[in-house]
Amino acid sequence: MNFTLETVPTPCIVVNLQTVRSNLRKMADYASQHRLAVRPHFKTHKSLRMAKLQLEAGAIGFACAKAGEAETLGQQGKDILLAYPALDEARTARLARLAHDMTIRVAVDSSLAIDRLAQAARSAGSTLGILVDIDVGFHRTGVQTIDQAAQLAGQAASTNGARLDGIMVYPGHIGAPLAEQPARLALVQEIAHNAVERFRASGLSAPIVSGGSTPTGYNSHLVPALTEIRPGTYIYNDRNTLAGGYCTLDECAATIIATVVSDAVPNKVVVDAGSKTLTSDRLNTNRESGGHGFIPAYPDAVITRLSEEHGEIDLTQSPQRPKLGDRIAIIPNHICPCINLQDAVWLQEDDGELHALPVDARGKLI
Amino acid sequence: MNFTLETVPTPCIVVNLQTVRSNLRKMADYASQHRLAVRPHFKTHKSLRMAKLQLEAGAIGFACAKAGEAETLGQQGKDILLAYPALDEARTARLARLAHDMTIRVAVDSSLAIDRLAQAARSAGSTLGILVDIDVGFHRTGVQTIDQAAQLAGQAASTNGARLDGIMVYPGHIGAPLAEQPARLALVQEIAHNAVERFRASGLSAPIVSGGSTPTGYNSHLVPALTEIRPGTYIYNDRNTLAGGYCTLDECAATIIATVVSDAVPNKVVVDAGSKTLTSDRLNTNRESGGHGFIPAYPDAVITRLSEEHGEIDLTQSPQRPKLGDRIAIIPNHICPCINLQDAVWLQEDDGELHALPVDARGKLI
Repeated sequence: MNFTLETVPTPCIVVNLQTVRSNLRKMADYASQHRLAVRPHFKTHKSLRMAKLQLEAGAIGFACAKAGEAETLGQQGKDILLAYPALDEARTARLARLAHDMTIRVAVDSSLAIDRLAQAARSAGSTLGILVDIDVGFHRTGVQTIDQAAQLAGQAASTNGARLDGIMVYPGHIGAPLAEQPARLALVQEIAHNAVERFRASGLSAPIVSGGSTPTGYNSHLVPALTEIRPGTYIYNDRNTLAGGYCTLDECAATIIATVVSDAVPNKVVVDAGSKTLTSDRLNTNRESGGHGFIPAYPDAVITRLSEEHGEIDLTQSPQRPKLGDRIAIIPNHICPCINLQDAVWLQEDDGELHALPVDARGKLI
Repeated sequence: MNFTLETVPTPCIVVNLQTVRSNLRKMADYASQHRLAVRPHFKTHKSLRMAKLQLEAGAIGFACAKAGEAETLGQQGKDILLAYPALDEARTARLARLAHDMTIRVAVDSSLAIDRLAQAARSAGSTLGILVDIDVGFHRTGVQTIDQAAQLAGQAASTNGARLDGIMVYPGHIGAPLAEQPARLALVQEIAHNAVERFRASGLSAPIVSGGSTPTGYNSHLVPALTEIRPGTYIYNDRNTLAGGYCTLDECAATIIATVVSDAVPNKVVVDAGSKTLTSDRLNTNRESGGHGFIPAYPDAVITRLSEEHGEIDLTQSPQRPKLGDRIAIIPNHICPCINLQDAVWLQEDDGELHALPVDARGKLI
């Protein structure tokens, strides 16, 4: 059964195919201009159809966080980088099995992870590529010094079952304002460049230097050491990429459609999209009072409070107010975890109709 | 394949069956003592097996937020209250169909909702029970005055397809500290009592007066007007119910098991449970610095930052620190949305083994 924006049951996510195509083309053009490979992060859409569109736009393969995501991609994944320090047995064994038939690389920041991945690969009769994860300032994962990076690289290069493939960095700390990105990315370049030089000096190679992130996506050329980038959100965009200045409203491909179910309490309405639809992820640029999404048709309305299935919209500052039963379109703060709540989203195709788009890797947590 | 706590792939949720049984018995005993019916909210566990345990413990039926949850429960739901102002066609039609074979009641706060529900019921040849939702201070949904409540009650009583069943209140604003609950619940009693009296004076009846919430659960007798309560979280509990003083640590039945995947950055470790496992829901009693879960084995560790698949744990104040590859058990801030991320959780049965427990109504958003 096909729906339109006026008939689709709510709450749901609608993805505009034309906007997706345009977003993919823009990133592909940029990357091509700067001789960067694009390795999109699968986590944003978790959809085989979207993955196919990314490959058609020139992607060399995918980044994933989970073995289950890589399994879902399977052969279609082509060349998969698990941008995640997998070291537990459930994950290493599955990755090693996948590496039989496809290229699987894993970014790690510990000797233990290399040992366990190599051991799993030897048991499976395969080889896992290793990228050394170097912390460039986000301070989440990643070795802290070039010395440590070189040590792990040496271990990867000399361990059966492992293969040294290069370096991974994640500039998760670099976002808005855009004007400050060049200076901050110069430090990333310095670290990445020094690591590559140090690897070379030790007789080790780093054919891949993988960068990342949608916020820094179009400034990736400021880190010339990079060979590839791993943007994820760019395919759909969201309120965070909009508020950060990394995209325009026209480039937001995904909206959450919700119905006004209550207007009984003064100065507000309630929609049927709560934290089980929008998630509780906050707006990066205004965590405290930024609310839980942006409503283009009611730009002064603020989604102030979420229960699991209720979204409360404060209309105090809004000259217009939606009526009971109306549908509204919301751009969520962070699209990736919203997608992961849906078994399927709706793809608005060129004919204007909505067709179900399965979220093939939804809930793949291992 | 069965697992133990040491072998189950992470991240995952483990539910202790013995603790569940004890939590259900405790609420059942309390309610029985005070002649209150228990109508558990299905949203917390979304599991048919847990629903069966609740019925065996004396539950009269269930509260749900979504038509899809009610459909999942089906006949096992017995007597379902949609504690949600359903008024969109997709939902009203599905509820009306269900009402053919079972008792379906809906709590509403608008004339439009009664019209649409009654119309759907007439089309389906069924009848939907109506509870009038009265705002008792949470200011989310609910009519604002007793006059408005009586008006909707009159409409429900006189509309074909609808049946007036009573009143619903939700004291979502009443939580910690427990010592303040009696005074605040006295106001709820006043409103509920006045509404019942007003209904009677107008020749209308309110056989059901439905209260709610785990935080106020064991103080429900302070609202003598109530005929039933709708606790949800009490079956599993979580860090919010623990921090509010509504349960003890021994009564927390659900924990998230995660693996330490990185210790490369000083003074922290990273586990494989991020916002796609723990959600970004904050701690009610300390929203800003309360962190994203409680780790009983490392009580001074703070889960300071979540990415989608990374949980960063600050160990600055923790004398002990988990090692790379270790498993840790986390009590999440809010268990309900965490459960909704999993296709199945693990039930630790009396033999100590873990058996898959499907989350039957996961992602039922309509």
